[in-house]
Amino acid sequence: MNDTVKYLLDESRIPKHWYNLQADLPRPAPAVLHPGTHQPVGPGDLAPLFPMALILQEVSTEREIEIPEPVRDVYRQWRTTPLYRARRLERELQTPARIYYKYEGVSPAGSHKPNTAVPQAFYNKEAGVAKLVTETGAGQWGSSLAFAGSLFGIEVQVFMVRVSYDQKPYRRALMETYGARCVASPSNETQSGRAILAQRADHPGSLGIAISEAVEIAAQRDDTNYALGSVLNHVLLHQTVIGIEAMAQMEMADDYPDVIVGCTGGGSNFAGIAFPFIGAQLRGGRKVDVLAIEPAACPSLTRGKYAYDFGDTAHLTPLTKMHTLGSTFTPPGFHAGGLRYHGMAPLVSHLQELGLIRARAYHQTKCFDAGVQFARAEGIVPAPEANHAVRGAIDEAIRCREEGVSRSILFNLCGHGHFDMQAYIDYFGGKLQDLEYDESELAMALAGLPSVAEPA
Amino acid sequence: MNDTVKYLLDESRIPKHWYNLQADLPRPAPAVLHPGTHQPVGPGDLAPLFPMALILQEVSTEREIEIPEPVRDVYRQWRTTPLYRARRLERELQTPARIYYKYEGVSPAGSHKPNTAVPQAFYNKEAGVAKLVTETGAGQWGSSLAFAGSLFGIEVQVFMVRVSYDQKPYRRALMETYGARCVASPSNETQSGRAILAQRADHPGSLGIAISEAVEIAAQRDDTNYALGSVLNHVLLHQTVIGIEAMAQMEMADDYPDVIVGCTGGGSNFAGIAFPFIGAQLRGGRKVDVLAIEPAACPSLTRGKYAYDFGDTAHLTPLTKMHTLGSTFTPPGFHAGGLRYHGMAPLVSHLQELGLIRARAYHQTKCFDAGVQFARAEGIVPAPEANHAVRGAIDEAIRCREEGVSRSILFNLCGHGHFDMQAYIDYFGGKLQDLEYDESELAMALAGLPSVAEPA
Repeated sequence: MNDTVKYLLDESRIPKHWYNLQADLPRPAPAVLHPGTHQPVGPGDLAPLFPMALILQEVSTEREIEIPEPVRDVYRQWRTTPLYRARRLERELQTPARIYYKYEGVSPAGSHKPNTAVPQAFYNKEAGVAKLVTETGAGQWGSSLAFAGSLFGIEVQVFMVRVSYDQKPYRRALMETYGARCVASPSNETQSGRAILAQRADHPGSLGIAISEAVEIAAQRDDTNYALGSVLNHVLLHQTVIGIEAMAQMEMADDYPDVIVGCTGGGSNFAGIAFPFIGAQLRGGRKVDVLAIEPAACPSLTRGKYAYDFGDTAHLTPLTKMHTLGSTFTPPGFHAGGLRYHGMAPLVSHLQELGLIRARAYHQTKCFDAGVQFARAEGIVPAPEANHAVRGAIDEAIRCREEGVSRSILFNLCGHGHFDMQAYIDYFGGKLQDLEYDESELAMALAGLPSVAEPA
Repeated sequence: MNDTVKYLLDESRIPKHWYNLQADLPRPAPAVLHPGTHQPVGPGDLAPLFPMALILQEVSTEREIEIPEPVRDVYRQWRTTPLYRARRLERELQTPARIYYKYEGVSPAGSHKPNTAVPQAFYNKEAGVAKLVTETGAGQWGSSLAFAGSLFGIEVQVFMVRVSYDQKPYRRALMETYGARCVASPSNETQSGRAILAQRADHPGSLGIAISEAVEIAAQRDDTNYALGSVLNHVLLHQTVIGIEAMAQMEMADDYPDVIVGCTGGGSNFAGIAFPFIGAQLRGGRKVDVLAIEPAACPSLTRGKYAYDFGDTAHLTPLTKMHTLGSTFTPPGFHAGGLRYHGMAPLVSHLQELGLIRARAYHQTKCFDAGVQFARAEGIVPAPEANHAVRGAIDEAIRCREEGVSRSILFNLCGHGHFDMQAYIDYFGGKLQDLEYDESELAMALAGLPSVAEPA
């Protein structure tokens, strides 16, 4: 039997539609509210930030949304992405489990993020927008938008969380190579940034702060829009190409996942792999056990409150109901910068409330143990974020061994770790530590949640 | 018309044979000589370093050499690799040329090097070898052998040229993640290393020195073999999967290359893309203009002497006839570490003598200009080595524009630059300089070439 089992779809099988989970939900997710009036926002409220095509996707309940041909054309560069059976890893774990992984690291920017960066750049270009402003944590999203911007001729400015900006000069250089301008956040370029720096000049930054800075600039300028790499419905929608392909590939494997595992920061790669399978279940298909893995140092699903909250620190965004640690919460500087966000995508939060997914939190050293074991067995070095999913999948496979049951486990390997090797150096050097958030800071951030009632 | 034009072969089209150029040469390349007797070496002379299967490939004149199924099985993880038409780049250059590139950066180690690392690990494993020792410049080769070693359960030790070891800690970390041990060369672990350090404690190292260290260790131990990432016939042979696939992909494109461009350090990626086309030409097929691009700071093909020389600095290797700058020549520390070798593969050198290829040298800033232009148009950030091929291809395309002729240009994009972003930081920061070698050092190194007559 071969060690390498790869399921690859022909490029004609690149999805023609994104899958919209909102069509199949037993009840809709709570409305998004205006931060001033606390009333549901309308498309016009979002128009200063996003092109109308994306706003309509945000609220659509159509099951299939067509992928424009120019977007499919760019997808073609790296899609379809491979789905592998991890036979060497299975053997090493001595597990009866069948482990599959979908590998999104083959994109030019090295992660799943271009799946949404490309359509976002496309729709903005169509709307005549000259410039996109965004935030980035680890840099996966910023470099993906920089990549997409260069292809569509849109200027890109990225506010990068300062701790990552300092830790990851190479990720910054990648954005610059694609022609984007990268600024450490908090910065002096915005009111929100200056306000934070006035309080603490060496503030390490957070995604919440960087979002405030990007939104502030986008709201001020007519030719400039904002782009977000996760959390919002349209972003999760674009990521469903992952799961749609994976369904076809599991069919090629003549198998179906019993368990699906993804890591969660804002929720987009998790949604990408899981939503198409959850949708099939909701339409009467097979039940899947869907497992969201989050960092124990930023545990929005396992320790956060399900409440209305702002997406950013300066409270410039609308209010969404989600699992949140509070918008003022600043997680410690662990290496999976892409998972350092105080909130969770409203749709993913809603699924947890509906009992359709479950969540588990891990500290980072256990995740790197898993990542190194995976790299030596399968030859791919995962990003620190992806190591959370690897850990979750390995633990499920070990459970299969202990229970003597062969389950089919599918996880999303959302990106490679080429720009995160400092984390591996720290790991091998014994310098990687499990970081704890400050309990009193969390209590304060939760106490500071806005008092908002869900409209009837 | 689509911007992304990708030609991808089904995995059943992964080559079943490597192509051996030695079958089609109008006259054979000069014999490899024993360093002591100056007589042609026999298989027994090489047995302390290599398994017999590789030694037989080294001297074989059979046109097709079967790829073992376990090697094809590992190839399957990332092969076949895509061939792209660079439409966006063509448009930006306003050239009538058709530019194609074969992209080898999709391998887990990020370059073409696993094409030979995998069979080398396989044949050594078959021969019962427990450990492989090798050298690496930029780290592409070292990480590829580390990857292959982890899959076949062979221990790997890598002597990494010190200047790269210091410049590229992330590449080192990649090797360690795959489980290899990486040592800066010159080191205190070998006689050759200690001798160099005694002369100059801060010696930046060179591939020639690192080869001496690796060969020294391999020759001493029965369970330990040596592995080389370029130069030798069997290494070039393994790389021909690139050109074999590219021929089929050009056929899919209903086109044939007028010009083939590759960068040359030791010659392996260049051979990989070019040999199958040159072989077809030698068997009566279409003539191709084959262009080797080398660094102006280490110009073996354009400034070296065609003579018998050692492959390493300590003169432990056999003598091969090649274009060489002299085995004592230490090139300056430019960023394309994979091209910092004093010699050129004997088969590539022989082709230049036969007039079947031509060579051109570029300084590094012009190559990075081309690399950044390529990244912004095509979305892939090339390795510094590959930037040489990009520069060559772009200049050929510009020539087409100036002459008003549409030629078909095929180049090998041998690897991505994810581990070389410091070079891009230096480039954007204006710190990247064109480095010149020391003319008097070159003259001395050439004067020191061994006096060896070609046997009749």
